Amino acid sequence: MKLGMIGLGKMGLNLVTNLQNHDHQVIAYDLDETARAQAAKVGAQPASDTTELIAQLATPRIIWVMVPAGKVTQSVITELSQQLSAGDIVIDGGNSFYRDSIAHSELLATKGINFFDVGTSGGMAGALNGGNFMIGGDQDLFKTIEPIFQSIAAPAGYLYTGAVGSGHYLKMIHNGIEYGMMQAIAEGFDVLEHSEYKYDHAAVADMWNHGSVIRSWLMELAAAAFKEDPGLKHLQGKMYSSGEGKWTLEEAIRLQVPTPVIAASLMNRYRSLEDDTYTGKVVAALRNQFGGHAVDKK
Amino acid sequence: MKLGMIGLGKMGLNLVTNLQNHDHQVIAYDLDETARAQAAKVGAQPASDTTELIAQLATPRIIWVMVPAGKVTQSVITELSQQLSAGDIVIDGGNSFYRDSIAHSELLATKGINFFDVGTSGGMAGALNGGNFMIGGDQDLFKTIEPIFQSIAAPAGYLYTGAVGSGHYLKMIHNGIEYGMMQAIAEGFDVLEHSEYKYDHAAVADMWNHGSVIRSWLMELAAAAFKEDPGLKHLQGKMYSSGEGKWTLEEAIRLQVPTPVIAASLMNRYRSLEDDTYTGKVVAALRNQFGGHAVDKK
Amino acid sequence: MKLGMIGLGKMGLNLVTNLQNHDHQVIAYDLDETARAQAAKVGAQPASDTTELIAQLATPRIIWVMVPAGKVTQSVITELSQQLSAGDIVIDGGNSFYRDSIAHSELLATKGINFFDVGTSGGMAGALNGGNFMIGGDQDLFKTIEPIFQSIAAPAGYLYTGAVGSGHYLKMIHNGIEYGMMQAIAEGFDVLEHSEYKYDHAAVADMWNHGSVIRSWLMELAAAAFKEDPGLKHLQGKMYSSGEGKWTLEEAIRLQVPTPVIAASLMNRYRSLEDDTYTGKVVAALRNQFGGHAVDKK
Amino acid sequence: MKLGMIGLGKMGLNLVTNLQNHDHQVIAYDLDETARAQAAKVGAQPASDTTELIAQLATPRIIWVMVPAGKVTQSVITELSQQLSAGDIVIDGGNSFYRDSIAHSELLATKGINFFDVGTSGGMAGALNGGNFMIGGDQDLFKTIEPIFQSIAAPAGYLYTGAVGSGHYLKMIHNGIEYGMMQAIAEGFDVLEHSEYKYDHAAVADMWNHGSVIRSWLMELAAAAFKEDPGLKHLQGKMYSSGEGKWTLEEAIRLQVPTPVIAASLMNRYRSLEDDTYTGKVVAALRNQFGGHAVDKK
Repeated sequence: MKLGMIGLGKMGLNLVTNLQNHDHQVIAYDLDETARAQAAKVGAQPASDTTELIAQLATPRIIWVMVPAGKVTQSVITELSQQLSAGDIVIDGGNSFYRDSIAHSELLATKGINFFDVGTSGGMAGALNGGNFMIGGDQDLFKTIEPIFQSIAAPAGYLYTGAVGSGHYLKMIHNGIEYGMMQAIAEGFDVLEHSEYKYDHAAVADMWNHGSVIRSWLMELAAAAFKEDPGLKHLQGKMYSSGEGKWTLEEAIRLQVPTPVIAASLMNRYRSLEDDTYTGKVVAALRNQFGGHAVDKK
Repeated sequence: MKLGMIGLGKMGLNLVTNLQNHDHQVIAYDLDETARAQAAKVGAQPASDTTELIAQLATPRIIWVMVPAGKVTQSVITELSQQLSAGDIVIDGGNSFYRDSIAHSELLATKGINFFDVGTSGGMAGALNGGNFMIGGDQDLFKTIEPIFQSIAAPAGYLYTGAVGSGHYLKMIHNGIEYGMMQAIAEGFDVLEHSEYKYDHAAVADMWNHGSVIRSWLMELAAAAFKEDPGLKHLQGKMYSSGEGKWTLEEAIRLQVPTPVIAASLMNRYRSLEDDTYTGKVVAALRNQFGGHAVDKK
Repeated sequence: MKLGMIGLGKMGLNLVTNLQNHDHQVIAYDLDETARAQAAKVGAQPASDTTELIAQLATPRIIWVMVPAGKVTQSVITELSQQLSAGDIVIDGGNSFYRDSIAHSELLATKGINFFDVGTSGGMAGALNGGNFMIGGDQDLFKTIEPIFQSIAAPAGYLYTGAVGSGHYLKMIHNGIEYGMMQAIAEGFDVLEHSEYKYDHAAVADMWNHGSVIRSWLMELAAAAFKEDPGLKHLQGKMYSSGEGKWTLEEAIRLQVPTPVIAASLMNRYRSLEDDTYTGKVVAALRNQFGGHAVDKK
Repeated sequence: MKLGMIGLGKMGLNLVTNLQNHDHQVIAYDLDETARAQAAKVGAQPASDTTELIAQLATPRIIWVMVPAGKVTQSVITELSQQLSAGDIVIDGGNSFYRDSIAHSELLATKGINFFDVGTSGGMAGALNGGNFMIGGDQDLFKTIEPIFQSIAAPAGYLYTGAVGSGHYLKMIHNGIEYGMMQAIAEGFDVLEHSEYKYDHAAVADMWNHGSVIRSWLMELAAAAFKEDPGLKHLQGKMYSSGEGKWTLEEAIRLQVPTPVIAASLMNRYRSLEDDTYTGKVVAALRNQFGGHAVDKK
C-alpha cells in the first residue's frame, strides 16, 4: 500500500524501513532533513512538508503519525484536520493518552476523516523487524488498513481492540505492566548484587531465559545489558518515565482498582530522580527531635 | 546415568519421565505406592524404601531428592546421611531455604557425602520437557552430574552458580521476581476488567506475546488461562504462596535492599487470604469516631 | 458577627452551634426542614431558601457554604454568584478540590464577590467545640473574617495559608497524611490481633496516648473505639474514602513526589471495598498453569 | 525505692534523673566515667562496676538494664545471671527483640532471678519527665515494681501487658506504627514543599496541632524541627533505623498479616541510605535496550 509517515525519529524511521521492506510505499516527512534523507535511503519518498506529503497520496489517503505524544501530536492532528479530505485515514501510532486520541478522533470526524489509535510495542527492534500493535477505531474500516499490520507486526502481533481510544488505552496498561515487571526484575538483581554469593548476572539472566518461569523478553534484554556492562558500572540508576505508567496509575485510581505494584514502581521511578528527599529530611529531623538520634548534616 | 529419585509428586514424576526419556536409569521411591507404579510405567525401577533404592545403586551413588521443603526434606537428608557412603552425591531439587541447604551439606559432609542444592524452575511442563536448573555445590564434582542437566534442562537452561546454597538462593530470588511479575500482569488485567472498554483478555494476552515488550512465559500462561475460563469466573482470587517470596523479602530486609514491589506483592498475597481485615475495621472505626462516617455493620 | 450558613449537615450544624455559642448570629439554610429546625433550636435564624438567607444579611454579606464537595458546592456557588453583590464574601468550608475552589473564586470575582477556601479539620467534635481551619484567599480581607475563626477554632487552630486554593490544598494534604497515619495505626493493631500475646487493645491505645511517641488524637479515637467494641466485632473493614486522599496521590504524581505510604494507604482502601479481586484470580490462574497449584474454585 | 541502673546513655541518664526526682535511690553504673559523674550530679550513687552496684543493693535487688539491644544487653544479662541471687529482679528497659527477652528470662529463671521486659517510649524528654512503659513479666511480682512506674511514667503512661516478652513485643509494634506515621507526615510535607503554594511548614505543623485530626506528638516535633531549621536545609535525608521497624515487618510476614504501609516505610528508609541503586541501573539499562532511551552515564 501507499501511505504517508509523519515523524521519522527512532521509531518512525524503523517503521518506514519495515514498511518498505514489505513492499509498501512510504511518503515520509520529518522536520529534520537528515531524517528525511535516511528515509530516502531505505526507499521511502521524502516530502518537504505535510502539504507535499498529502499531495503525493491519492484519496482515500492513509497517514501514519509517529511524533511525540501531547502537544506535537495534537498540532500535527490539527494540521491534518485542516488539510485532509473526507474518507482519509489518520493513524496515531505514538504514545498518546487515550482521551486525547478520542478528542483527536472527534476533531477529525467533523471533517469526515477517519482515525485509528494504535499502541505500538516491541521497541526499536520491533518497529524494524516485527512489532506489536493494539488498534482502536472503526471495525469495518480496519480491514482497509489491516494489510499494513500484517506486514509490519510480528506474526500474530496485532489486535483490533475495539472503539477508538481502546488501542492507546491498552498500550497504557501494557506499560503499567511493563513498569512492574521491570521493577520486579531489577529488585531481584539488586538483592543478588548485595548477597554474599557472587553471581554472574549475565549468565543468570541468560539461564533464566531458557526454561524458567520468568523467561521473558525483558530478561533477554537484561542478559544483553549485563553482557555489555557487567555490574552496570557505567550507568546511573535514574529511571525516567514517559507518561504511560503514570496514566495507568491515574486510571487505576479513577476506577478504584488497587494496583500496589504499579504504584510502587512509579513511586520508585520518581524517587530515583532525586538525590535527596524532603521526606527523608523530615523523618531524620523527627528522629533527632524525639530520640536525639544523630543526623547527617550537610 | 543411573540415579535414585526420592519423591514422586508432580515435579518428581515428571523429572523421572524426563530422565528416562533421555536414557537415564532411575530407581524411584515415594511413600505412595500409586506414584511408584506411575514411575514404573515410564520405565523407572521402583524401590519400596530408601534402603532398597540405595541398594540398587553402585557407589558413588547419585540420589535426587524431590520432596516438600522443610521438615520432609530435612528428614530425608538425615536418613540419607545415615545410609549413604563417603563419595555419594545427594541432590536436593526442591524449594529448600538456602540456609537449610547449607546445613544439609554440612551434615552430609561429616560422612564425606557430597551435596548439591538445585533450584528448579519451569513448572511441571519444564520438569517433563526441559526445565531450568540453578546448581550450587562443589565445582569440580559438578562435572560428574552435569550430564543429567544436559539431558533434562531446556537447551542452555542450567547454570552452575557457585558454592553450596547458591542454587537455592538464586531460586529464591527467581521466585521473588516471579511474584512481582505475576502481580504486575494481574494488576494490568484488573484495570482492563474494570475499564469501559470490553477487551478479550485471551486475545490481548496472546497478542502481547507476539512482539511486545512484555512478552513472557507468564503472559503465555495468562493467555492459556483466559482461554480456558474467560473472566476467570470459576476461580477465587486466593493467592497462596510457598516460602520463597517470603524468604526473598526477608533476605532483602536482612541486606537492607529496598524491594518495594516484591514486598507489595507478598502483602497482597496475604491480603487475598483474608475475607475481612482487622486493619480495615480499625480504619473504619476511626473514620466513624471523628467524622461520624457510616460504617458497615456486620 | 452576622453570617449565613448554607448546609446544615453533621458539620454545618455543629459549626452553627459553635458560632451561636460564641455570640455570632447565623442565618441558616438547608434543603432539609428538620435540619433548619435544629439550627433554630441552637439560636440560629432559619431561612427557607438562599434568597431569604441573603435578604437577612446586610452588605457586605458573609456566607459560609458547608455542602458536599463537587456538584452540590458548584451549584450553590453558581447560585450565589447570581444573587450576591460586589464586596460580599463567600467561604467554602467543605472538602472541595482546590482547583475547583480557584475556579469558584474566579467565577465569583467576575461579580466582584470575594471568596475564601477553608479546609476544615477536627471532625464533628471540632466543628462543635473548636476546630481546625486552613484559610486561603485575600490576605487583607482575611482580617474581616478572622474574628469568626478566633471564635470557632481550637486555640491557635487556624492559619491564613496564602492565595486562594491554598486552604483546600492544605486540607487535601492533611487528609493524605491522615490516611497514612490511620493505616499505620491499623496495621499495628492488626499484627497485635494476630499475635500469640493477647492484648487489651483499648488499654494499649490508652497507655500509648500517655507519653509515647505515637500519642495522637487518632490514637485517642482508637482507644475510644476499642472501648466501645473490643475486637471491633460488629464492624466490617470497609474503608471508604472521600476524594482527598485520592487527590493527594494525584497531586504527588503530578509533582513527581514519591509518596509510597499514601499510595499504599489508598490502594488498601480500594482493596477493602472488594470481596474478591480479579488480580487475585489472575495470579491464582497463573500459579495453577505453571505449577498445577491448587486453586479455590467458586 | 532503691534500685540499680546499668547503662547511663541518653535514655539511662534521663531515667536516673527522673527516678531521683521522685525520691528513688539509684545506684548507677556505666562503663563511661563521665556518665557516672553525671549520674552522681543528679543524686545517684555511682558504682565502678556491676559487682559494686550489686553490693550496694539489699536482696531482693531490683536492677534496671538500659544498654544497647543485642550483644551488649545479652552480655549484661549473662553477667547478672552469674552475680545475682534468687528472688532478685532484672528489668530490661531497652529496645531488645522480644524473643531475646524471652531467652534472657529463661536464662535468669535457672537461677531463680526474675525478669521484666519493658518497652520504653517517649524519647529522651519522656525518660526525663514522664515516659511511656509497656511491661511484660510475672503479674504478681509486677506489683513490687509498680511504684517505680507510677513515679517515672507520664500519668497513666504504663501498662502491664502480660507474659514475659509482651512488653518488648508491644514496643516493637509501637515502633512499626511510628515508622508509618512519620513517613506519612514526611510525605505530606514533601508534597507541600514541591507545590506552587509556599507554605510556612512550622506554622502549618503548629496549626495542625491545634484541633486537627492529625494532631500528634510527632506533629509537635515537626513544628519544632521546622522552627529550628526552616526548609531543613542543614539536614540530609538519611533515615536510619534501629531494629524494631524491621522486626515488626518480619513479624507481620511470620503471621501473614498484610502491612503494606509499614513495609513501604521500611523500604523507604533503606532507600534513603543509598546514593544510587542497582535496581535503578537495571531499569535504566532495560529502557535503553528496548527503546534506545537515553541513560545517564557516570
